[in-house]
Amino acid sequence: MMTPFSTLRSMIFVALFFCFTLPVFGDEGMWLFDVPPVKQVKEKYGFELTPEWLQHVQQSSIRFARRGSASFVSSQGLIMTNHHVGARNLHELSTAENNLLENGFYAKTLDNELPCQGLEILVPVSSEDVTEKVNAAVTPEMSAEEAQKVRNAAIATLEKETSDKTKLRCDVTTLYQGGAYKLYCYRIYNDIRLVWAPEQSIAAFGGDPDNYEYPRYCVDCSLFRAYENGKPAKIEHFLKWSTEGVKDGELVFVSGFPGKTERSYTREHLEFQRDIYFPWRLQKLFRREVVYSAFGNRSLENQRRIADDLEGVQNYRKRAIGQLQGLQTPSLWKNLPQTTSAKDSPEEKIFNACRIARNELYLAYDFFELGEGFNSQTFKIARMLVRLAYESEKPNSERLKEYRDGNLESLKQTLFADTPIYEDVEILKLTDSLTLLRNLSADKWEQWATILDQDLSPKEYAAELILHSKVRDVAERKRIAEGGIKAVKYSSDPMIQLALRLEPATKKYRENYENEVEAPITAAYAELAKQRFEKLGTSVYPDATFTLRLSYGAVKGYKEDDGTDAAPTTTIAGMFDRAEKQKFKEPFDPPKSWKDGKTKLNLNTAFNLVTTNDIIGGNSGSPLINTKGEVVGLVFDGNIYSLSNNFVYTETQSRCVSVHADVIVESLRKIYGADRIADELGK
Amino acid sequence: MMTPFSTLRSMIFVALFFCFTLPVFGDEGMWLFDVPPVKQVKEKYGFELTPEWLQHVQQSSIRFARRGSASFVSSQGLIMTNHHVGARNLHELSTAENNLLENGFYAKTLDNELPCQGLEILVPVSSEDVTEKVNAAVTPEMSAEEAQKVRNAAIATLEKETSDKTKLRCDVTTLYQGGAYKLYCYRIYNDIRLVWAPEQSIAAFGGDPDNYEYPRYCVDCSLFRAYENGKPAKIEHFLKWSTEGVKDGELVFVSGFPGKTERSYTREHLEFQRDIYFPWRLQKLFRREVVYSAFGNRSLENQRRIADDLEGVQNYRKRAIGQLQGLQTPSLWKNLPQTTSAKDSPEEKIFNACRIARNELYLAYDFFELGEGFNSQTFKIARMLVRLAYESEKPNSERLKEYRDGNLESLKQTLFADTPIYEDVEILKLTDSLTLLRNLSADKWEQWATILDQDLSPKEYAAELILHSKVRDVAERKRIAEGGIKAVKYSSDPMIQLALRLEPATKKYRENYENEVEAPITAAYAELAKQRFEKLGTSVYPDATFTLRLSYGAVKGYKEDDGTDAAPTTTIAGMFDRAEKQKFKEPFDPPKSWKDGKTKLNLNTAFNLVTTNDIIGGNSGSPLINTKGEVVGLVFDGNIYSLSNNFVYTETQSRCVSVHADVIVESLRKIYGADRIADELGK
Repeated sequence: MMTPFSTLRSMIFVALFFCFTLPVFGDEGMWLFDVPPVKQVKEKYGFELTPEWLQHVQQSSIRFARRGSASFVSSQGLIMTNHHVGARNLHELSTAENNLLENGFYAKTLDNELPCQGLEILVPVSSEDVTEKVNAAVTPEMSAEEAQKVRNAAIATLEKETSDKTKLRCDVTTLYQGGAYKLYCYRIYNDIRLVWAPEQSIAAFGGDPDNYEYPRYCVDCSLFRAYENGKPAKIEHFLKWSTEGVKDGELVFVSGFPGKTERSYTREHLEFQRDIYFPWRLQKLFRREVVYSAFGNRSLENQRRIADDLEGVQNYRKRAIGQLQGLQTPSLWKNLPQTTSAKDSPEEKIFNACRIARNELYLAYDFFELGEGFNSQTFKIARMLVRLAYESEKPNSERLKEYRDGNLESLKQTLFADTPIYEDVEILKLTDSLTLLRNLSADKWEQWATILDQDLSPKEYAAELILHSKVRDVAERKRIAEGGIKAVKYSSDPMIQLALRLEPATKKYRENYENEVEAPITAAYAELAKQRFEKLGTSVYPDATFTLRLSYGAVKGYKEDDGTDAAPTTTIAGMFDRAEKQKFKEPFDPPKSWKDGKTKLNLNTAFNLVTTNDIIGGNSGSPLINTKGEVVGLVFDGNIYSLSNNFVYTETQSRCVSVHADVIVESLRKIYGADRIADELGK
Repeated sequence: MMTPFSTLRSMIFVALFFCFTLPVFGDEGMWLFDVPPVKQVKEKYGFELTPEWLQHVQQSSIRFARRGSASFVSSQGLIMTNHHVGARNLHELSTAENNLLENGFYAKTLDNELPCQGLEILVPVSSEDVTEKVNAAVTPEMSAEEAQKVRNAAIATLEKETSDKTKLRCDVTTLYQGGAYKLYCYRIYNDIRLVWAPEQSIAAFGGDPDNYEYPRYCVDCSLFRAYENGKPAKIEHFLKWSTEGVKDGELVFVSGFPGKTERSYTREHLEFQRDIYFPWRLQKLFRREVVYSAFGNRSLENQRRIADDLEGVQNYRKRAIGQLQGLQTPSLWKNLPQTTSAKDSPEEKIFNACRIARNELYLAYDFFELGEGFNSQTFKIARMLVRLAYESEKPNSERLKEYRDGNLESLKQTLFADTPIYEDVEILKLTDSLTLLRNLSADKWEQWATILDQDLSPKEYAAELILHSKVRDVAERKRIAEGGIKAVKYSSDPMIQLALRLEPATKKYRENYENEVEAPITAAYAELAKQRFEKLGTSVYPDATFTLRLSYGAVKGYKEDDGTDAAPTTTIAGMFDRAEKQKFKEPFDPPKSWKDGKTKLNLNTAFNLVTTNDIIGGNSGSPLINTKGEVVGLVFDGNIYSLSNNFVYTETQSRCVSVHADVIVESLRKIYGADRIADELGK
C-alpha cells in the first residue's frame, strides 16, 4: 500500500518543496483544478473537461485527516476511502473483545454507525489565485526579508477575512516556489462515523509480499459517513457509482491529494540520490530488516515487540528498492532536460552542494545529527533532554528550530509520552547501528572513537548504555527536564553522558550540513523555480503539496521486465486461485466470510485494476472516475515501477492500482449483507 | 549448527593455511595427540593425560566422510555423529513416501540397518613425526624448488610404503608451514549403515532462529554402524557411555577434526577483515537475505525454489555477524601480540598487501573474478565455457590453475551437471548483484559501464541476459564446449558475449590480486611461521588442518552481554516450555513422538550443555569426553561468541555446545523404543 501521507513526510531527505516542473510525458501531471489539463485531455482522448465537471469532482473530493484522500459517494454523506487510510480509526474503535481490523465491521442500521473521535475531513469548496493580493503591498525597494514579512501579513489577513466571511477553513498555499499563491477554502466535517470495513485479511490480501506488486486482490476500502447536527450530512456534490465497469483503454481520472513530489531535482541531485542516498539508505534498511526479523523469529514475544519496527522497515525497503530501480534505469534519465553548464548557475550550485555532502559530510550528519549511529529510543530521549536543557537557556531566536517556543509544546509531548520501550529491542537496535558506525574505515573511526570514549564491542557497549540508563522512566525524564543544565551535566546516566559528549561534534556536523548543503540547495532551487515560472507560468503543473490535484490516464496493462504481460484487471476467481496456490497460508488466507460465501459470489467480478494515472503517496483513497464523473474504482497503491514517480513519471510500466468498483458492491451485497449501503451507492 | 567442513572450505577468504600460533589463553588449543597439553591440563585441572588414555581416545575417534567428526560408542561398531553431519545420507536414503529427515529412522533389528552408499569413515590409527625422513635427501645447496621436489618424492614414497605395509590409508600432512611433517594412517570403513536418527524437528529444534544461540534444545545426533564382511565391525577402541552425567566445572575433552583456523593472522590482516572483508561480506548477505526472503514470501513455489539459497545465506550471515562481533571487541585485540614495526618485516608486507586490497582491488576482484557482480548460475556457466575454450588452447602449465589437466575432469562434471536452474531466481539474483555493482560511486561505474556495454536498468538487463541465454540447457553447453574458441566467439548468446567482454578486465584484476595481495601474504606468513617455529617448536599447537586434535575445557555457563546468566545445562522441561511459549509454531514444534511421549519422559533430564572447549567447524559430531574417557555429550555447535574462534579463542563467553549424553539415552528408550541400542551403549 502507499504510505499514508503523514508517515511519508518524515521520510524524505532534504525536506524542500520544489514548485516548478519539466516538460510533460505521456499521462504525466498532478494538475491544479483551476489550471486543468483541458488541452492535453482533449488532444489525447478527445474528451472535454468542462468547468461544471471539474467543479463537481472537486467538491466531491475529500482530504481525510492528514493521512490521505477520500470522496463523497452518496447524497447522505457516505465517504469512501482506503482501509489502510482509515486503519488508525479502526484500531481506535477496537476493543479487547473485538478487533475491528481483524474482524471488519458493518453497521446494519444508521444507529449502529460508530463515531470516530477526533477524526476530521476537509472538502475543498473553492480555490482562488491570490498572487496579486499577497504581493500587493510589496515594493521593489524592500529587502527579501521585508517583502516576506509583508506577504505573510497579507496572507494572514486573507485567511482570516475569508474564513470569517465563508465560515470555511481557509489556507493560502505557496506554489511554484512563490510564483503563485492560492487560497484554498475547505468545509470541515468532524462528526464522522464508521459504516463498513472489511477484514484486514481481504483489505490487505497478500500483505507485505504483494505490497507494491501486481496482479493484486485487495478490497482496500472502508466506508464512513459525515454527520451534521447528529444526522447524515446532506451532500450536493458526490460521485455516482458506475454500474458499467470500465473498459481497457478507457479514459479515467484521479482526484485527490498527492503528498509530495521532487520532479524539479536536477540531474546532479538525482545522481546524488542514486549513488549515495538510496544505496546508503538501503544498506541500513537491509541490515535492519534482517536483524529485526532474526530477533522476531526467536520467539512470539520478540515478534510482538519488534512487529511495528519491522513492518516500517519492510515498507520503506520496498519503496526504496523501487525508487533506486527507477534511478538506475537509463531511459528515465533520457527524459530529463540537459543541465546547463553555465558557471554559477543554480545547477552548478546544487552539484557543488551534493559533492560536499557526498564527501563524508552526509554520512557524519546521518550518523550523528540524524542519530542513525545510535538508533534507539533511549538515545533519542537522552539527546532531547540534553538539548532541551541547553537550548532553553538561549534567547528564542538563537535556538535550534525544534526548540523554539512555538515547537516546544509538541516536543515535550513526544519527550514525555509514556510509550512502551523494550530493553532488548533497544539493545538490538543500538548494537546494530553501533556496528555499522564501527564498520567505517579506520580513519573516520579513530576520530569518532575518541568521542565515544569506550573500550567495548558494539554489543557490550549497547547493553551497558541501555541497561544503565534510566531515561526510559517518564518521571526520571521530567526530573531531568526540570533540573536544566545542572541535572544534565551532573547526571550519572551513561546515555545522557554519551549524548553530552557527542553534542559538540554533532552540532558542528549539523551546522555544516545546513549551511553547506541544505541552504545552497534551497536557494538554488528557488532561483531555478523563478527562472522557469517566468518562462512557463502555470502552463505546467506544480510539484505536489498535499493540495487537491487532478490526474488523467487510461486503463492499461503493461509488460514486466521479464516479458510477462500484466493484464489491466484481476477477478475474484484470481484471488481464490492465488489463495489456493499458497495453501491459504497467511497473508494469502482470505477471511472466513469470503471462503464461506464463495459460492454466492460471481467469480468473474473485476477485483483490482491498473491505470496510467500519475499518483504518489497521499493519493491513497482517491476515487477513480470515468468521463461521466462516476466512481469506477478506488486508488490504493502504485506498482513497483511507479515508485520513482516522485522523481520522474514514466508511462511504460508505472501504474496506479485501484480497487474495482464492482468488487466493492459485489462483496457488500453477497459477503457482508450490506444491501442498505450497496443500494445507497446505486442511487 | 556449525557448518559441515566441506561447505566451510569454500567460504574462507584468502585460502591460506597458516601453521604457527600465538601464546595460549585459558582453555585454548586444538592440540596434536602426539604433542598433547599434558602440562596445561595437569596445572589447571590436576588431571594427568596418559599415553594410554590418549591412544584410546585417538583410536575411538572418526573422521566422518569429508564433513565432520564422529566416534565409536560400542564394540559392535556403533558410530555417533551429529544429525546435521549425517543429513546428506538421510536425504539420500529417503524415498518419495518416506522422508527420513522429516520422519526420523530407527532400525528395530540389525537386519533393518540401512546401508549408506558411498559413505566412508576414517579412523586415525597412528601418527608419526616424519620431518626428518621428509627432509633426509634435502641438501643446503638445493634451491627452494628443488628441495620441494625432493620432499614431495620422499612424501610419496613414505605414503606408499606405509600404506602397502599397513594396509591403511596413509597421508603426510604439512604442519607449522613446513616446520613439521606428520604421517597419519587411517583405517577405512566403507560399509556404513544407518541405525537411528531422530526427526529433524527435534534434531534442529529452534531452527535458524536458535542457530548459534544458547540455551538450546537439540537432539542433533544420529547413530550409524560400521560393518566388515557384512557383519558389525569388532571394535577394540570405543568410548563407553557415562551414566553419571557431568558436573558444573568438570574437566571435559573434545576429540575431533577441526577444519581450519586463522590464528596466525597479524593485527593488520585482522583489521582488514574487520574493516573491509566482513562489512562488505555482510552488506551482500544482508541484502541477499532480504531479497531472497521477499521473493520466497510471494508464493509457496517461490519459497521452494529459493529455500536452499536462503538457508545458506542465513547461516553465513549469522556466522559473519558473530565473527565481526568478535573482531569489533576491543578485549579480543588485547590478546594479540604487538606487531613489530621493523621495515621489510613479514608484518609490514602483510600490511602493504592488505592496503593494496583495500584500495579498490579487492572490490574489483570480488565483483569480477569471484563473480559477485553477476551472481547467477547462468553467468558462472557462460564464463566457464569461455575460459574452457581459451584455456584449452594453451600449454597446460600456462593455464589458469582450475583449467589444468588435473582439474579438468571435475570442472567438466560441474559444468555439465544437469541441476535445475530457475529463470526467475536467476533474474532475481542477477538483478540484485547488478544493482549493487551499479551502486558504486560514479567514477568506478563509468569505467565498468563501458565493459558492460548496456543501456538498461539492472532489472531489465538481468531479464535480457537470463531470458536470452541458452546455456541453462546442458546439450547447448556441450555443443559450445566442443566448438572451442570459434563457438564461443561467434555465439549469439548474450551471457557468453558478456563473459567474453568482461574477460580482459577480469583476468587483469585476478592477476593483480594474486600477485599483489595473495602471493605476498602467503610468502610473508611462511616467513613468520618459520621464525616462530624455530623459536617455539611444537610447544604450541598448529592451526587446524582437518586432522585429529584434542581440546580440553570445563562445563561452564557464561554471562550474556545484557547481563543474563546462561546456565551450563538445559533440560527436557525447558524444551517443552520453549515450545509452549512459541505456541508450537515451527521451528519450535517438537515432533509428534515427543509430544505424545511427554508423560513418559523424565523432564529433568539434561538436554544440551556448554563447555569452554576450543572448537571450530569440522568439530561437529565430536564426542565430549570425561576424564575416564567416557562419552558425556556430543558437540554440535558453538554459541555466537565462539564464532570468532577462527581468529582468536577467548574463554569469557565463547562456548562449545553439546547434546547431553542423558537426553540421547532417555529419548532412545522412551520415545523411540530403541532399547536395543540404549542397551548397547550401556555395555
